[in-house]
Amino acid sequence: MTISKNAQQSRDLHAFTPDLRDGVYQAILRRRDMRSFLPDPVSPETLGRVLAAASHAPSVGYMQPWDFTIVRNQETRQSLWRHVDQERRAAAAGFEESKREEYLSFKLEGIREAPLNLLVTCDTKKNGPAVVGRNTIREMDVYSVVCAVQNLWLAARAEGLGVGWVSILRNETLREIFKIPDHVIPVAYLCVGWVKEFPEDPLLRAIGWLPYRPMEDIVFSETWGERPSSTEFKDLRSGLKGKLGC
Amino acid sequence: MTISKNAQQSRDLHAFTPDLRDGVYQAILRRRDMRSFLPDPVSPETLGRVLAAASHAPSVGYMQPWDFTIVRNQETRQSLWRHVDQERRAAAAGFEESKREEYLSFKLEGIREAPLNLLVTCDTKKNGPAVVGRNTIREMDVYSVVCAVQNLWLAARAEGLGVGWVSILRNETLREIFKIPDHVIPVAYLCVGWVKEFPEDPLLRAIGWLPYRPMEDIVFSETWGERPSSTEFKDLRSGLKGKLGC
Repeated sequence: MTISKNAQQSRDLHAFTPDLRDGVYQAILRRRDMRSFLPDPVSPETLGRVLAAASHAPSVGYMQPWDFTIVRNQETRQSLWRHVDQERRAAAAGFEESKREEYLSFKLEGIREAPLNLLVTCDTKKNGPAVVGRNTIREMDVYSVVCAVQNLWLAARAEGLGVGWVSILRNETLREIFKIPDHVIPVAYLCVGWVKEFPEDPLLRAIGWLPYRPMEDIVFSETWGERPSSTEFKDLRSGLKGKLGC
Repeated sequence: MTISKNAQQSRDLHAFTPDLRDGVYQAILRRRDMRSFLPDPVSPETLGRVLAAASHAPSVGYMQPWDFTIVRNQETRQSLWRHVDQERRAAAAGFEESKREEYLSFKLEGIREAPLNLLVTCDTKKNGPAVVGRNTIREMDVYSVVCAVQNLWLAARAEGLGVGWVSILRNETLREIFKIPDHVIPVAYLCVGWVKEFPEDPLLRAIGWLPYRPMEDIVFSETWGERPSSTEFKDLRSGLKGKLGC
């Protein structure tokens, strides 16, 4: 496909240099959901940078509904850990026997071991009540906060810092422990810390729990469920190199 | 704060080189929600890369519940645009008179003008029903899809490509137009294309609609609502340079 003169001009003007662009793709490809952490503290300089990265996420109507609670207190973390461990055992029953044992081996020690946890919440009343773009889809504010989490996660990876998202917990328990008011929605509970190593592949992929879903499995054309032609898929794949393609 | 030997070692091993790291922060800082696009087509190579970036997002239980429908058909886009225009006018009534006119001036022409639109959906049954980490918070699958959108948005920015998220629409209408089955949740409707320029600041910030929420306004300590000390804030700010701090 030949690119038009206007498109070429726009790209020349706005595309990042290869090194900078490579940084973005590498963060995306090398980010991992971490489960083990070194106990060593994270400096406030580094923590401040990843929080600032989060605060520059897109948000519906520029609402910026995010708040970040830094959690270091061990007692708090111990009581949250007890709750998560209970939920984890309860959830195990939902898996086939063949997968149950493996499921129970997945660690959640980051809550206690990591030097810090981050509670990420969405303040649904922030900058409201009339928010540009939130009239029909009420969850847009929560989606904004998730975008902030992903920003934080990618910036952390670039800093060499590990992040793990703990989702086996109940929001009511978070509300109790952290005194979260009703109009605020807990969105993510993160463990943050330095790590021994970032695994080559996501854990659940590496152990064969589930395979990666390639381009051919995730792209539709014009209507949900309709696949593009094989030529179109070949073209879509033509720009992929190395890990990006698989 | 002195950094421990272990932390230093881990950082030396895993942190990106300054150029690569800079790429990540620049994508985060220079990404914009675009409203105007050049009509020129986006090459499948470029589109393929940003879709691949999306597909490497974190997902609960490695579920990868995302699908991307590429929409080019003008009739489809025209009927969606009519719906969005209606919703936009209806929403205008919710704003104070002083802001109403400005609200109505925000453009949604990207739906028709951009060379392509992307419908991003969450297949709640993909790789289910037992999904690692989705037992207590049912929306984790949708959050995974939002992370994919943010990956796509950042990769697009690095490519010099604009993305705009249209949220003034009803999911029922998307379901009708794109024949989306009940177990699939529409998450984002994006306009994608080359752009004349990326504005220096987010539109709603630039026009004074809302200010940026700085570190001091978004960080709590140990409990929701409790602020860290001013020394802690100073430390958190010590690693920020240029645009990252404001």
